[in-house]
Amino acid sequence: MTQLQRVTISPNQIENQQITLTPEQYHYLSRVLRLQKDDRFIAMNGQGEWWLAKLVNQQAEIIEPIAIKTELPIAITLIIALPKNGFDEVVKQTTELGVTKIIPVISDRTLLKPSPQKIDRWRRIATEAAEQSERQIVPEILEPIPFKNSFSLVNGAKYICYARGNSPHLLNYLTPSPNTGITIATGPEGGWTEREILEARAAEFQTVSLGKRILTAVLAPIVALSLVAATAETIP
Amino acid sequence: MTQLQRVTISPNQIENQQITLTPEQYHYLSRVLRLQKDDRFIAMNGQGEWWLAKLVNQQAEIIEPIAIKTELPIAITLIIALPKNGFDEVVKQTTELGVTKIIPVISDRTLLKPSPQKIDRWRRIATEAAEQSERQIVPEILEPIPFKNSFSLVNGAKYICYARGNSPHLLNYLTPSPNTGITIATGPEGGWTEREILEARAAEFQTVSLGKRILTAVLAPIVALSLVAATAETIP
Repeated sequence: MTQLQRVTISPNQIENQQITLTPEQYHYLSRVLRLQKDDRFIAMNGQGEWWLAKLVNQQAEIIEPIAIKTELPIAITLIIALPKNGFDEVVKQTTELGVTKIIPVISDRTLLKPSPQKIDRWRRIATEAAEQSERQIVPEILEPIPFKNSFSLVNGAKYICYARGNSPHLLNYLTPSPNTGITIATGPEGGWTEREILEARAAEFQTVSLGKRILTAVLAPIVALSLVAATAETIP
Repeated sequence: MTQLQRVTISPNQIENQQITLTPEQYHYLSRVLRLQKDDRFIAMNGQGEWWLAKLVNQQAEIIEPIAIKTELPIAITLIIALPKNGFDEVVKQTTELGVTKIIPVISDRTLLKPSPQKIDRWRRIATEAAEQSERQIVPEILEPIPFKNSFSLVNGAKYICYARGNSPHLLNYLTPSPNTGITIATGPEGGWTEREILEARAAEFQTVSLGKRILTAVLAPIVALSLVAATAETIP
């Protein structure tokens, strides 16, 4: 099963066991992957459902649903101050690690405002990384918003990573088989400002450390996601 | 203190509180960093010792030793099957995370044999990443060797990451404040062969999982190091 190619489709492309392929999807399956008539592939709807499907003319037919459990038992939201470079890598690697939602934010020390093309690009990277890592869900990537506006979009346990503050390590707060969603916020190059930390604390974010060494803005979210994912999958 | 620039020197460049700078180091300090006479910087010997120093003519003088504790309490060795791409990133990010020694290995599914220039490049990346993350030790990077030859170079607890084997998660084996070194082996694109897993088990490596999703050859060592470093720094 794992040898089959995976393609993400929208839920509205399916009707009565038939998948209406877009011209791009048909091109990808027939030209790039060189599938022939009746060859099989996996269709994912990006919301946790997979189907075994086969190519028939320029459309596809569903053969049967597939039960694969590669998703984490909890939802993880990453609030990340847009770094100057390397955000593609953050999207790719946190998707591989099981992130559910990414909220890029503009912080006091963020300068650039990304173009809509960039956002499409991030969503494409997330889709590809979800397929490659055999996930059933493609993480949602929101449009960038000011940091403070992200507070009202998240609930459950909330942590903000703060390099210089002598805060307890994130790992101290994580418990095996958690039953509530987790939000992690990581800062830009140069870190969060004190004002941002105060505002986040007022919004019930717990400040945490990721260790004694100074991590880059790209590595910090990957480390945080590694810890959350590993703990969530460990039996208590 | 953390605002000062850091430069790595060899232990034999120090004599009687004087640091004999190489022409490259002097160029870096005076031209790139634009330090003037009597300006201060941090000299690191890559073995855990730091000094506050000042520039004097084309040499430097030690003002005083600095005690900074950013190193993990244990030695971590990473045995990594050389990936086709992205090894620079592995060196950079595992250095930021606190790795002590990196042993690049040639596995059954590794094709390329890197040039000596590559090895110099990796050592430069490790030196820069150690400075940037404020570490006191620059990790040692060995010349690439066949996987099997690495077994005799490591001791302490040994784990090999195996994506498809239903092994217990690495996190299950890690304990706070460990008192023995840890070795982690991660595979190439396509994974270790069964033969390699059997040989590693015979050499007392425990097979472990890094979670239910399939990680790339570049992300796996970063995730493993995140878990080892976080656990080692957590109080039991």
